[in-house]
Amino acid sequence: MEGEDKEMSKVFVRSAGLIPVGEYWEKSIGELMYEAASKAIESAGDVKIDRIIVGNMFSGYGTHQEHLGALLASVLGMAGTEALKVEAACASGGMAVHEGYLSVKSGEYKNVLVVGVEKMKDIDTGHLTKALAMAESAEFTQAVGATFISLNALLMGAYMQRYNVPEDQLDYFPVIAHKNGATSPHAQFRRAVSLDDVKRSPPVAPPIRLLSSAPSGDGAAAVILSSEKGDVEMLASETATNELMLFQRDNPLEFKATKAAFAKAIKRAEITKDKIDFIEIHDAFPVVSALSLEAMGFSEEGKAGRDAESGKYNLDGELPIATFGGLKARGHPVGATGVYQVVEAFYQLTEKGGKNQVQGAKVGATQNVGGVDTTSVVHILRRVS
Amino acid sequence: MEGEDKEMSKVFVRSAGLIPVGEYWEKSIGELMYEAASKAIESAGDVKIDRIIVGNMFSGYGTHQEHLGALLASVLGMAGTEALKVEAACASGGMAVHEGYLSVKSGEYKNVLVVGVEKMKDIDTGHLTKALAMAESAEFTQAVGATFISLNALLMGAYMQRYNVPEDQLDYFPVIAHKNGATSPHAQFRRAVSLDDVKRSPPVAPPIRLLSSAPSGDGAAAVILSSEKGDVEMLASETATNELMLFQRDNPLEFKATKAAFAKAIKRAEITKDKIDFIEIHDAFPVVSALSLEAMGFSEEGKAGRDAESGKYNLDGELPIATFGGLKARGHPVGATGVYQVVEAFYQLTEKGGKNQVQGAKVGATQNVGGVDTTSVVHILRRVS
Repeated sequence: MEGEDKEMSKVFVRSAGLIPVGEYWEKSIGELMYEAASKAIESAGDVKIDRIIVGNMFSGYGTHQEHLGALLASVLGMAGTEALKVEAACASGGMAVHEGYLSVKSGEYKNVLVVGVEKMKDIDTGHLTKALAMAESAEFTQAVGATFISLNALLMGAYMQRYNVPEDQLDYFPVIAHKNGATSPHAQFRRAVSLDDVKRSPPVAPPIRLLSSAPSGDGAAAVILSSEKGDVEMLASETATNELMLFQRDNPLEFKATKAAFAKAIKRAEITKDKIDFIEIHDAFPVVSALSLEAMGFSEEGKAGRDAESGKYNLDGELPIATFGGLKARGHPVGATGVYQVVEAFYQLTEKGGKNQVQGAKVGATQNVGGVDTTSVVHILRRVS
Repeated sequence: MEGEDKEMSKVFVRSAGLIPVGEYWEKSIGELMYEAASKAIESAGDVKIDRIIVGNMFSGYGTHQEHLGALLASVLGMAGTEALKVEAACASGGMAVHEGYLSVKSGEYKNVLVVGVEKMKDIDTGHLTKALAMAESAEFTQAVGATFISLNALLMGAYMQRYNVPEDQLDYFPVIAHKNGATSPHAQFRRAVSLDDVKRSPPVAPPIRLLSSAPSGDGAAAVILSSEKGDVEMLASETATNELMLFQRDNPLEFKATKAAFAKAIKRAEITKDKIDFIEIHDAFPVVSALSLEAMGFSEEGKAGRDAESGKYNLDGELPIATFGGLKARGHPVGATGVYQVVEAFYQLTEKGGKNQVQGAKVGATQNVGGVDTTSVVHILRRVS
């Protein structure tokens, strides 16, 4: 009886779908969601969706469209079905998956469709900069003219100084991402870049350069989470927050939200972190990659760049990251990113990785961040033997 | 054992708080949330919040602030705590309560803080009209210049024609709301209006007039939902959607989302609808009141106005509605409204209604709508004897 109860509360990824990240000038946000969702629904076989959750950050500001949950229900011909949108800045996608996980775990829903979407290309650069800054305080951070990338640039500078790390070492992260992106069919940038390319690329917010910053793009990704046994089980979905404003934190170089979410996820999944075969991290900027890997204990403090340089995080390394290109090369359509990560973990764990397959992957993780580690969502998934 | 399990999955409203709806030019959206949340937290006694859910429709578009969940966690000094924002147009508040209910019901969380907030006064009328229209299709409805109130005006015209109902009869709804608002300490408009006042008020989108349209306002309301036994139990929280675009519905005069959500709620609560002592309906416009009450079976088709005229929906009538003024007089700070409704139901069921107390109220309901009944959220609450 107890065993049966436990079985009932398990959550599986039943199917997944996505569209390549790119520029969809001719398509609406509803069409992007529709395409990704349709792929997940088609590959799920005979399934009745009983809940729709959309992860998105700024569709209202960007494309004058809210009510994305009901919109998606309608375009899918599923009007009637429960639907909502979830927002947690750049972690909106991960948070939507978290709500989906919780929905199934509650026993109230059997099949939940989770879609992450963002349409960024319609917005001019000035407004896009402003849209991204909405992840931090309008009152205190935006008001003094700080942009989101400028906060990350300050953080990168502080990191380099504290740990005496050269820019070159951190720039191995975009090199890894682009190397994986080169063979990733759904990546926005399917080409490798050298360390020298990164170094010579123009500064955007020094020390962050064009080739060390995640690009803007349009995208949508979808998963169907289910109580019915599937090929991949979601062992844990955990989240936590950090102080909203970077300048109010005791130690800005400590990613407390990621640290807490990861610790909870490991505990929930009843595994040790060495069991994780790959992790899709939130590699929006090199310093975010470094601080994330250090917060989760995969690298020692100040040593993530060195580990990246050593090959540890390569596709054939000890712990592959950004296996389909990550935020840097696959692309970072903000509210969709957390769902792309889970789709990619699903691909790896069902051996659909193609040239990007992590050999023998049994357990994978994802880490999706909103703001500068203000919100963090961590998922752990396992292949059902 | 079975009984114990059932007890464990119950959801209670532990405490509530709100600020009067009004114009808060000098306060940020974070401050509004903080004030409402603090009141709920203070009156809950010793409580550890383990999840924060914010309901809000357009903070990004309106005040350039997203990430409201993490923002609230930070301003409350609760950084670390899980937090997210939920959006479902004007039903964002009700949907946030729904997520809170589900969180507790899942057994994963013990005390969930749900806050609804909207800051509308900072936005000029043109942009506010656009913000509200984001509840319908940007591609098809907004693109042809239709505003949200114009859709409701068309619906009101269709209703009057189909059922041969004069405008005067539907205008009893704002009269009821304002009568209750006159003695409601947190109402935006604390004065009664006569049927003649409504009739003589300027048309906004004919046949909707200034005094038959919900106003814009700033507001925030909060509840703490808990697995720990409290004075009010949430018997049901159910939601459904309807076709997004009004013009695509077979019968625009059928509120299918409200009908479905209410039917599910009644079933879940294991009561018949005659047990409901009062209901906070989504009275944004008279035709929405009428179609909502008809969809839930409280009035026959085309007869809700007649019933309003008869006194059935007065505070001392058979089924009081809008007991603290409703959307029309208490005010309609969009994403906060659904939470205000639940706070008001809590007040009624704990005999804190003051001059607006529904005598002997044991069971209360709320109905919160996004778009033109595109999303509907229904709650049923009961006083624990």
